[in-house]
Amino acid sequence: MSAGLPAARGVLEDLAAANRILVDQGVFDAAGHVSMRHPDDPSLFLMSRSLAPALVGPDDIMAFDFAGAAADPNGRPAYIERHLHGEIYRARPDVMAVAHSHTPAVIAFGLTGKPMRAMYHNAAFIAGGVPVFDIREKFGATDIVISSPEKGAALAEALSDRPVALLRAHGMVCVGPNLPVAVFRAVFTVANASIQHQAMALGGPVAALDAEEGALADAINVQTVGRAWDLWKRRAIG
Amino acid sequence: MSAGLPAARGVLEDLAAANRILVDQGVFDAAGHVSMRHPDDPSLFLMSRSLAPALVGPDDIMAFDFAGAAADPNGRPAYIERHLHGEIYRARPDVMAVAHSHTPAVIAFGLTGKPMRAMYHNAAFIAGGVPVFDIREKFGATDIVISSPEKGAALAEALSDRPVALLRAHGMVCVGPNLPVAVFRAVFTVANASIQHQAMALGGPVAALDAEEGALADAINVQTVGRAWDLWKRRAIG
Amino acid sequence: MSAGLPAARGVLEDLAAANRILVDQGVFDAAGHVSMRHPDDPSLFLMSRSLAPALVGPDDIMAFDFAGAAADPNGRPAYIERHLHGEIYRARPDVMAVAHSHTPAVIAFGLTGKPMRAMYHNAAFIAGGVPVFDIREKFGATDIVISSPEKGAALAEALSDRPVALLRAHGMVCVGPNLPVAVFRAVFTVANASIQHQAMALGGPVAALDAEEGALADAINVQTVGRAWDLWKRRAIG
Amino acid sequence: MSAGLPAARGVLEDLAAANRILVDQGVFDAAGHVSMRHPDDPSLFLMSRSLAPALVGPDDIMAFDFAGAAADPNGRPAYIERHLHGEIYRARPDVMAVAHSHTPAVIAFGLTGKPMRAMYHNAAFIAGGVPVFDIREKFGATDIVISSPEKGAALAEALSDRPVALLRAHGMVCVGPNLPVAVFRAVFTVANASIQHQAMALGGPVAALDAEEGALADAINVQTVGRAWDLWKRRAIG
Repeated sequence: MSAGLPAARGVLEDLAAANRILVDQGVFDAAGHVSMRHPDDPSLFLMSRSLAPALVGPDDIMAFDFAGAAADPNGRPAYIERHLHGEIYRARPDVMAVAHSHTPAVIAFGLTGKPMRAMYHNAAFIAGGVPVFDIREKFGATDIVISSPEKGAALAEALSDRPVALLRAHGMVCVGPNLPVAVFRAVFTVANASIQHQAMALGGPVAALDAEEGALADAINVQTVGRAWDLWKRRAIG
Repeated sequence: MSAGLPAARGVLEDLAAANRILVDQGVFDAAGHVSMRHPDDPSLFLMSRSLAPALVGPDDIMAFDFAGAAADPNGRPAYIERHLHGEIYRARPDVMAVAHSHTPAVIAFGLTGKPMRAMYHNAAFIAGGVPVFDIREKFGATDIVISSPEKGAALAEALSDRPVALLRAHGMVCVGPNLPVAVFRAVFTVANASIQHQAMALGGPVAALDAEEGALADAINVQTVGRAWDLWKRRAIG
Repeated sequence: MSAGLPAARGVLEDLAAANRILVDQGVFDAAGHVSMRHPDDPSLFLMSRSLAPALVGPDDIMAFDFAGAAADPNGRPAYIERHLHGEIYRARPDVMAVAHSHTPAVIAFGLTGKPMRAMYHNAAFIAGGVPVFDIREKFGATDIVISSPEKGAALAEALSDRPVALLRAHGMVCVGPNLPVAVFRAVFTVANASIQHQAMALGGPVAALDAEEGALADAINVQTVGRAWDLWKRRAIG
Repeated sequence: MSAGLPAARGVLEDLAAANRILVDQGVFDAAGHVSMRHPDDPSLFLMSRSLAPALVGPDDIMAFDFAGAAADPNGRPAYIERHLHGEIYRARPDVMAVAHSHTPAVIAFGLTGKPMRAMYHNAAFIAGGVPVFDIREKFGATDIVISSPEKGAALAEALSDRPVALLRAHGMVCVGPNLPVAVFRAVFTVANASIQHQAMALGGPVAALDAEEGALADAINVQTVGRAWDLWKRRAIG
């Protein structure tokens, strides 16, 4: 297929399903978006037109270059924050999928300087640390939105080589080596945040996963993610 | 149309939908009401007859003047607290819609003197501060209900030029320049309260949105509220 | 009708609905029971046969005397804890309905000696105080169940003239002058507990309703309970 | 029947139902598994093929020996963590059913050294104490999974003669003298954890059930578990 044309139908269906899964799992509300690198052209990524994620279907998927230009706009409005996705794909060749949300449970960790830690094996990918991106540092007072390539690039720089970053007063971004892993990480970043609120409230030291345990456990999760993905897709799509 | 007669069908449908959206989003329970200024006569406002908000349909909408007199009562009982709405419309010509609820997550902030702050961009409208109205200050021991023009006026005075106020031991009121924005603010005042409970439990300083960030982010929210409104309406009305 | 025969069909339907409402509202889980004084014979009360409350229908309702003897057992097993109900009806001629649950949100207040206070007008009935019944004081180590007239009487004594009591390590009991009010109080005792957890976590003084405000607000709630009852019944029964 | 062939249809249906009940009750998510000792051969246990628990049906049940070898694999993949189950059945002849989950509410207690205590009679089985298994102590840094007979045996040793153990940074295991009791204990271990978070946040001493009360109350729960089981099965299977 030519660049700019949609990817194979199954790919579009999976990406639409990922949007709906993240609604069904409580990660997305009326906002949130998940994208994937184009399987046929690594210089493009696929993402829905601007739409509430619960409503995204295969025909809503568009292709964009890293600068956020639509390959085939066809009159469809794009998410303002496509630059968050584009600049991560540009900076991280290992990343094949990106999810961004405003999930309440994670927000407090982006506001308080309390580092997120890996509370259990499902969130093993957190064990290496979760950076916090504060848009004020480079851009002063803004509307918080990642609305330009420059802001996307600054976020990508903060993310560095990690699987998750928090955005102060905004939300989180999760990335993965494929779409199901990015979705899995989004779901369990939220679950981990809820657990950490409870663990810190109990007081005293928290025996979180260390980096070595995290790496070992994450490898298993990446291998076995299909079981969760299949269930979630069935729940979300019916 | 003549004053007192219902507004255009689409307006009535939207206002009924707003009631059901706020139930579906967890802001309203068996109580709660949302009103809008009459599009054809700014000295009137539209509001359901006394009814659980989950049950409100277009035909339940009545028109009231600021003093709470029904333009076309037709034997239908009105909410006791219509004065909360009427006196805000009288005091605030900029306000086109008002929502009032008893949502649990916000109550504690009205009881403890801990100020609500804007935890994320969705609640940017909070960054300028949330006043607390304590009915005891002017009226002594009461049944808490905003049951008279005098009580409504005192609440409107406490609200001042803000988008949200808390009512001690009672709930909240959110206003907006149109119906979808008032609904959006109600939803995200509640979400913000839940996040702030978590952020304060983590301890230490909280890097909330400052007033400048809040103003910038709120402007974006007001522009893009349609995406959430359309989804919520679809969920609530089916 | 003769004592022991079922009450009027509408009464049985309302009591069955009350059981299902309290499931739907999250007060009951697989356990919990609600009873009412027999409208035709104040020395009897009506209560389901032993059954999960979500499954109770009008034909499951039995009549009992205060000692817990079924007027018309017809081979149907009764709840062990019918003595909780019977002894309250015996001690409190003003009580027309009783609900008992194990709802998680209230348990901590029965364990810690932190008094429940009225966080908002919906829970105004709490403003006069919520006693805690600790079965150990009179009965030593037990299975916690209110399984005898003696235990029921001790609980009724602890309840005294109040609308709500907590049972240490067990749950709560709510009473009212009619069935909808008892149900309303059960729902808002739970909501109030959740709010109080948040208010106490914020720290500092909590400007709860005082006894005078509580009495005034409770009178309004009792008058207007029908709006909530009608909605809840419609939700629970369909 | 010969070893390795499925058990009676009703047994398979109950075990499939148990999986779905624990999803419906919020104990299992996309992961979690529950097993039972084979009613016809106590040296075997029954457990689903590797599958999300929400999808388990009677035909998915396989039989395994304590070492985790399938009696009739028929090409079906088994859960890696079947060793958790097998080694408990080997060590505990009294155990007839085992449930394992990653439920968020319990994780913090496995990380912080704060002992779980019995907050109410539904969780009476906790009153004798809940051990915490830290896989690091014997195995160093691992992927956390109970993936070998050795790890299963170490967990069984930590469980000792108790009904529940926590697995640090992983989840919990609950056992019982029959399938409904194991399911009941899983449900109420989670409820108890949520209550204990609230009780500890209130501060001060917590009047939890003592061991004597716990033993008495647990005996009642074991006798009356059928009422909850029947309801839960009806909800989960329809």
